[in-house]
Amino acid sequence: MPDDIPVYFDTEEGAALFQGSDIKGHFWTLCRYFISEKFLTYCGVASGVTVLNSLGVDAPDEPQIYPYKMFTQDNLFTDEVLHHRRPLDVEKGGNSLEQLASILCCFDVKVEVYFVDSIDEELCRHLLVESLKSPNQRVIVDFNRQTLHQKGNGHFSPLSAYHSGEDRFLLMDVARYKLPPCWVKSAMLYHAMTDVDASSGKSRGFLVVEQQIPEIRDVFESSSSIKR
Amino acid sequence: MPDDIPVYFDTEEGAALFQGSDIKGHFWTLCRYFISEKFLTYCGVASGVTVLNSLGVDAPDEPQIYPYKMFTQDNLFTDEVLHHRRPLDVEKGGNSLEQLASILCCFDVKVEVYFVDSIDEELCRHLLVESLKSPNQRVIVDFNRQTLHQKGNGHFSPLSAYHSGEDRFLLMDVARYKLPPCWVKSAMLYHAMTDVDASSGKSRGFLVVEQQIPEIRDVFESSSSIKR
Repeated sequence: MPDDIPVYFDTEEGAALFQGSDIKGHFWTLCRYFISEKFLTYCGVASGVTVLNSLGVDAPDEPQIYPYKMFTQDNLFTDEVLHHRRPLDVEKGGNSLEQLASILCCFDVKVEVYFVDSIDEELCRHLLVESLKSPNQRVIVDFNRQTLHQKGNGHFSPLSAYHSGEDRFLLMDVARYKLPPCWVKSAMLYHAMTDVDASSGKSRGFLVVEQQIPEIRDVFESSSSIKR
Repeated sequence: MPDDIPVYFDTEEGAALFQGSDIKGHFWTLCRYFISEKFLTYCGVASGVTVLNSLGVDAPDEPQIYPYKMFTQDNLFTDEVLHHRRPLDVEKGGNSLEQLASILCCFDVKVEVYFVDSIDEELCRHLLVESLKSPNQRVIVDFNRQTLHQKGNGHFSPLSAYHSGEDRFLLMDVARYKLPPCWVKSAMLYHAMTDVDASSGKSRGFLVVEQQIPEIRDVFESSSSIKR
């Protein structure tokens, strides 16, 4: 397997990489909620929806499947999201890393934004792998497709697994009509994230999205505040 | 693992079953095209869309992702399909096994319909496993959820893998907001397919959908038909 070529998921080599992957805890729920971007510019939206669903975040109502619920690429645009980001804006120009983070922050998650020009390759790998090991975190990468020898430019997709021996990440490409998921060398992915996003003037990078564990209220404190 | 309980995909046991599964060739593309039914009654439509996409069947145009193409739960209803089956009909009452077959037959695939009351458990397992081994076939099962101790009744979903040692099939449940994929014992799946579908009065069963390899025209015959 040459280092400078992604290995596609639906090939014999891809299946062998999955089999040998030692960190794939995120895959099982991401596979369940994996979707296709509905517009060519909706990669951030589709990645966000996949990740929020896979973290079990409480979703807006969805009348067509009532009484069940699920995030979709439509209902993600809640009142709070619409105040700063409209579907039309995303359809026209997609999202920058910070814009996607600002959408996700409207839900019950904590979002960390990493621009890769501020971290080196080794730290980048470390942060991605640690997140992939955490059951209550998910990773969305923002990279330039050209570094991966794919048609296109800036693109978002979630990561779902890592193969330590081969030092490759499994990228769940949300432009599913275009390409299958693929295994990318860590160095190649890092390089693809160093690209500067012309819309923001900043480097690309990744988001770590973490499920918020509801805080345990201090029962004693509140009960002690009752005047006796 | 008790025989009468499905093992869900996103559990440790589920991951171990996937790892040990010896027949999982269909999984890699089904995972790429796996979708959620958009209405509670669209299980057949969602299963059909997933399978047609994973077989690489030529899809109708989809303006939002032009120049790419993909089957969706909307564009599946082409002119030809609409002549005998409308979205409204499916929204109201879902599809029977034959109705789903009649929709899929409008595309470039060959569809075999199997009612399980006409085959025994052993033959059923054999047919399902043989189809799962064939790269140009896909399987959609029509079963009663109650046999699997799940809420609901009749339901369609594609199969994507088989574990010979445990004699379990991997069912890609398209009601993804409700349940993850699950590993079901062959005997339990057979039993769930023997249920009679009240809408058709026939037993449930499964469809084997096969990609049509374009026939090679007999060039010599056609050229020989030119009068000299």
